[in-house]
Amino acid sequence: MGDRVSRQWRLAARPAGMLKESDFVLREEAVPALEGEQVLVRNIYLSLDPTNRIWVNQAESYLPPIQIGEIMRGFAIGVVEESRNSNFHAGDIVQGLIGWQEYAVSNGSGLRILPKDPTIPLTAHFGLFGHIGTTAYFGLLDIGKPKPGETLVVSAAAGAVGSLVGQIGKIKGCRVVGIAGTDEKCRWIKEDLGFDAAINYKTQSVLRSLRRHCSGGVDIYFDNVGGKTLDAVLSHINLKARIVLCGLISQYNATTPEAGLHNISNVLVKRARMEGFIVLDYEHRVEEAVADLTKWLAEGKIQYRIDVVDGLEQAPNVVNRLFDGSNKGKLIVRVSDEPSL
Amino acid sequence: MGDRVSRQWRLAARPAGMLKESDFVLREEAVPALEGEQVLVRNIYLSLDPTNRIWVNQAESYLPPIQIGEIMRGFAIGVVEESRNSNFHAGDIVQGLIGWQEYAVSNGSGLRILPKDPTIPLTAHFGLFGHIGTTAYFGLLDIGKPKPGETLVVSAAAGAVGSLVGQIGKIKGCRVVGIAGTDEKCRWIKEDLGFDAAINYKTQSVLRSLRRHCSGGVDIYFDNVGGKTLDAVLSHINLKARIVLCGLISQYNATTPEAGLHNISNVLVKRARMEGFIVLDYEHRVEEAVADLTKWLAEGKIQYRIDVVDGLEQAPNVVNRLFDGSNKGKLIVRVSDEPSL
Repeated sequence: MGDRVSRQWRLAARPAGMLKESDFVLREEAVPALEGEQVLVRNIYLSLDPTNRIWVNQAESYLPPIQIGEIMRGFAIGVVEESRNSNFHAGDIVQGLIGWQEYAVSNGSGLRILPKDPTIPLTAHFGLFGHIGTTAYFGLLDIGKPKPGETLVVSAAAGAVGSLVGQIGKIKGCRVVGIAGTDEKCRWIKEDLGFDAAINYKTQSVLRSLRRHCSGGVDIYFDNVGGKTLDAVLSHINLKARIVLCGLISQYNATTPEAGLHNISNVLVKRARMEGFIVLDYEHRVEEAVADLTKWLAEGKIQYRIDVVDGLEQAPNVVNRLFDGSNKGKLIVRVSDEPSL
Repeated sequence: MGDRVSRQWRLAARPAGMLKESDFVLREEAVPALEGEQVLVRNIYLSLDPTNRIWVNQAESYLPPIQIGEIMRGFAIGVVEESRNSNFHAGDIVQGLIGWQEYAVSNGSGLRILPKDPTIPLTAHFGLFGHIGTTAYFGLLDIGKPKPGETLVVSAAAGAVGSLVGQIGKIKGCRVVGIAGTDEKCRWIKEDLGFDAAINYKTQSVLRSLRRHCSGGVDIYFDNVGGKTLDAVLSHINLKARIVLCGLISQYNATTPEAGLHNISNVLVKRARMEGFIVLDYEHRVEEAVADLTKWLAEGKIQYRIDVVDGLEQAPNVVNRLFDGSNKGKLIVRVSDEPSL
């Protein structure tokens, strides 16, 4: 120890609008020697998620805001290189909030040891399992409560979470309509993932397209974007509809307040339920999601795609792909090489 | 029959903004002879409710819009004067959607026979029981799910529903904060009904007052008004808060779209649940509410006040008291005299 150096992205300024590299500063620091029951984790894959944008705001949210000068928070997968904690051993692959850094020193809390299964690539723990799969699984099944024959609409439908939500909806017997931002994404979710219909919100009217593709109304809306899309879907909900508020991507970079939501009256008239969802509340039930997702993957009923970028230094720029629509699958930064199993 | 004449308010025009007498026309028509299994009901008390304003809109809602030329819909209590239906007998007191008219001919569907109890005045079936009590009871208990020690906020808190919601909240051990529009109403809910605090939204900042009176945040919001008040409360909700969307009075007379709801992101962040509620869904469970409300009334734990206006001809003008804040208790029109029991 002591001779190891870790590069780390620290928050340098409160961002306004899209994240800029200048909102962060890349520091090199010596990795301190372990104390007490600490473990040293080498970061391998850093997950970039829309919620990263929330965490750098000053405003109170579901986790404390990252303070100026602190290391940027981030889900990641790493390998334990040294351990003074009896729960972890050198060579363990762990997942948790390791952050935007090459090495993390941790007391082990919040780190989950991943099973070593040569048939499951590590990146699958972001593309299909981990916080992404758990979000899709519990958000849809626990909050959305889909029933066979119901119509499910999902926004950011080609995104990491949305693409899984739609596929789980199909497995549960729903008619699934996805909203995405490019023709390529629409083609992918329809032709490869089996969605019943896809709406390109950048070239089509969401309202008119919903009328066409959901002529029987919308029973479940899994919302990743908020804003105008949410309003459009609200105007189309059925009696006792469920709206899963999972993300509000359209709002995260807003520098002026949005026009506001106008169709809330339809939630009353249709006795609908709109409910917020954060995956961290489901950590104690992760294994349920993993079991089903593993089975569905083996049965060929579910697929995912990943978008891996090399180098921790890329993180602040690449994260914006989540907001400008240019990502193609679960966005991951490769921070270092996987150990050979 | 045939010689009886019934005055009836029929819808004459689609109202814009507050209801005007000219939106309706008062007709006199001969009461037709009964056929089949029909019953003839003489209207005694007509209930005026905020939802009346919704029913005259062209827009689809939880009941079909009243068409131009149709008799205005309304909850009422009447007495059966003649019956060809074996379920009803002359002298039965019935409650249902009898409408804004002196006599109704009905096949009996939707009419509920009220028990004859000399200790319960007929008006109590609007002030405490009936659709008002059932709305407060199931809206709060089934959707709001109050737990002892939680903080409940209710808007239109001196209204027929709101005043019961607050009192039921106190019975269930909640800290209750009411929002109302006059100092007299605030005094009544605090001093007579036992609310913990009251906010006059016309003279005080709801946002600042909530901060003062709900320093621990809001666990349940029973919303009767929507609009800015809803937005203010949303900014103050606790983790896992429940928002019962029962009414949106502030919107019913709007002639231009409201500014929209801005704090929906807090529903996500706080994993809150916002759910629409219409009492008609609970008709099969009315007796549960009546049993508890009767007990609480006998125990002196609940009270109500009524605001009775004489004469069917007053209905179109008087209904606006629900929107200009001048009503003082459950608004009822006395259409004809009660029969002696």
